Amino acid sequence: MKQRLLHTPQGVRDLYGSECQKKNQIKTRLHHVLMQYGYQDIETPSFEFYDIYTQEKGTVSDTKMYKFFDRNNNILVLRPDITPSIARSVAKYYEKETLPIRLSYVGNTYLNRENYQGKLTEFTEVGAELVNDTSSSADAEVIAMMIDALKFAGLAEFRIDIGQVEFYKGLIEEAGIDEEQEQELRRYIDNKNSFGMEKVLKRFQLKEQSYEALIGFMELYGEADVLEKAKTLTSNPRSLKAIERLEKVYQMLCIYGYEEYISFDLGMLTQYNYYTGIIFKGYTYGTGEPIAKGGRYDELLALFGKDAPSIGFVIQVDELMNAMTRQKILMKMPNRTLILFDREMEETAIHETMLYRRQGGRAALMKFYEERTLADYKDYCKSNQFHQILYLKGDGEKEIIQIG
Amino acid sequence: MKQRLLHTPQGVRDLYGSECQKKNQIKTRLHHVLMQYGYQDIETPSFEFYDIYTQEKGTVSDTKMYKFFDRNNNILVLRPDITPSIARSVAKYYEKETLPIRLSYVGNTYLNRENYQGKLTEFTEVGAELVNDTSSSADAEVIAMMIDALKFAGLAEFRIDIGQVEFYKGLIEEAGIDEEQEQELRRYIDNKNSFGMEKVLKRFQLKEQSYEALIGFMELYGEADVLEKAKTLTSNPRSLKAIERLEKVYQMLCIYGYEEYISFDLGMLTQYNYYTGIIFKGYTYGTGEPIAKGGRYDELLALFGKDAPSIGFVIQVDELMNAMTRQKILMKMPNRTLILFDREMEETAIHETMLYRRQGGRAALMKFYEERTLADYKDYCKSNQFHQILYLKGDGEKEIIQIG
Repeated sequence: MKQRLLHTPQGVRDLYGSECQKKNQIKTRLHHVLMQYGYQDIETPSFEFYDIYTQEKGTVSDTKMYKFFDRNNNILVLRPDITPSIARSVAKYYEKETLPIRLSYVGNTYLNRENYQGKLTEFTEVGAELVNDTSSSADAEVIAMMIDALKFAGLAEFRIDIGQVEFYKGLIEEAGIDEEQEQELRRYIDNKNSFGMEKVLKRFQLKEQSYEALIGFMELYGEADVLEKAKTLTSNPRSLKAIERLEKVYQMLCIYGYEEYISFDLGMLTQYNYYTGIIFKGYTYGTGEPIAKGGRYDELLALFGKDAPSIGFVIQVDELMNAMTRQKILMKMPNRTLILFDREMEETAIHETMLYRRQGGRAALMKFYEERTLADYKDYCKSNQFHQILYLKGDGEKEIIQIG
Repeated sequence: MKQRLLHTPQGVRDLYGSECQKKNQIKTRLHHVLMQYGYQDIETPSFEFYDIYTQEKGTVSDTKMYKFFDRNNNILVLRPDITPSIARSVAKYYEKETLPIRLSYVGNTYLNRENYQGKLTEFTEVGAELVNDTSSSADAEVIAMMIDALKFAGLAEFRIDIGQVEFYKGLIEEAGIDEEQEQELRRYIDNKNSFGMEKVLKRFQLKEQSYEALIGFMELYGEADVLEKAKTLTSNPRSLKAIERLEKVYQMLCIYGYEEYISFDLGMLTQYNYYTGIIFKGYTYGTGEPIAKGGRYDELLALFGKDAPSIGFVIQVDELMNAMTRQKILMKMPNRTLILFDREMEETAIHETMLYRRQGGRAALMKFYEERTLADYKDYCKSNQFHQILYLKGDGEKEIIQIG
């Protein structure tokens, strides 16, 4: 019975000790960079009406949401994605604003997975949205900010893969592939199954150029020269315009000095149908999952009644922390002192500790119980991340003991 | 249709603009004090198995929880209270630890209310738990920390009302009142209905002394002299022991120098049945609801398999923010600059802004669109909390414009 009571539901977990401090530090540092970029926090509820996330909004699939009812029998959903909530908020609170709006958030999202396989269902996300700005400068700013945030969190080696949904849509349109066929194709693209692609594309009986373009575009991965290659693969205006846009964004990212972090992946698709332009994902060592992702969504806000082009990203704090742990990236944690006192010194200890705290120190007070030894307290400090003991002895002496 | 899409469920809300910044600053400041006291963060999931909150745990009533199902048909609950989750965690991860454990958290809780009446159903809480310490020093530390946190958040005028559940239990036991009678009595005490109390107590046909004590204890509210009065009201050892304990805690709080914030309220009851000793609530002007509450719960962890006396508190961030707003307490917000640039200055503007941010500044970049006037940007800064414009003009000149 009691053993059973200790469990948490599948896909959620407890964080404590140094792991929890680490996560909070990462969160704080990511958020700090968003503040430096002049973004302003917005907070939306953990649950929303189901309508906010219905299929046409293009967020995660219906079956992956946690649903429940309010007392009036409305369906509520634990938010699977914060972007639609912010789209709703902007339509509501910034209805008349036409100049760029910069919003940031820190919050949890929830995915009701069919197969957990050790994956999380509750995630912490730090993200930002830049609304009312259609420019390539906006695209570049958001990507540069994401890079700065990852760097400031302590990550050194990572890459941002950039794609463009319009490039693929142009190819599909040019080839005359219908929606049903596209769904079929997408499965092979998602699995990077080029053998399956070939088979399917042959069955579709496309023109030579379209066939070659759709076989070839999945391989368009690498440095900026990929954009040149892309232009030789197709001549349809929609795809070419997408490439031109990426060229402009790349030029801007060079002004930021961040070209070293950038790769292009024109075969990149996304599960979120609300993206309409550039999309991107951040990858690093130690995890196969993206640590960050984002893109341009110029039509989502219109569904909430405000015609406002937007771009945003989200950093997956849990994935980032896992990767940093595996990469053995050290994080400097604030020092914590255990102020240990002999029974008769309690009043002095309280006064000294209050002073210590007022001077900015972090200190916990603890009585030296007679049945304990100093070794017990040292062990305690090790397992509870105290870096030193300040021992106030009954005879008025003080001893400082560093914990290794 | 679109109008409907803009709504949030009852009892939850969006925060944006200066209100959201204010809330985050309060949260950060409260948390800062907990860190100074040497507490360490713990993070538990937003939802738990229903078992964690069943009736015998003594948390909120069953009907006030948001419930839903996981894919294995287990009942999940959006946590109505973080303390039981932490009790579970401590039993699991600190199973062998017998020295004091200090844990803190920042998180949201959820109450599925029958009547909203404008009340929130999602709350932000900053809280702390001190486990494995039965001493009156522990009681005082937790209350002192709560006072320091409220002060550091910016609150100046507030009071902590202190009660003791054992005092009341002693009176009930002495009077020979059974559980059913106690339930009836409690309704009158909760409503401070002394007329109803008299009627009910007369019906119970108690001994004179018990009758007088139960009529009188609700009036035991005020400064420390209330504890003296309480001792004249009854002679049962359980109640007297409760008073002695409060005297010790008060002495300790005097060492902290915090007696000015303390009142005693021996008629204070609590809806949480897990409390076993001292209980307390923080009040200030501008809200009738407590901004903070807590107490000792020496038996809760045993229900999860670890026999560990504990005390904790929680500060209701939303209530505190409301009160501070009504009290017109000003909070200093970090300065934010809008770096405005003429089209041809974009590259320079990016470089200058990056430098400005590296030096610790907060700045958003914005192009001066030809169809706009400087007045538009000034208005924008006002409604978006920018305190100045740094304008990089096409001719190379710079202008700094302060926003009033």
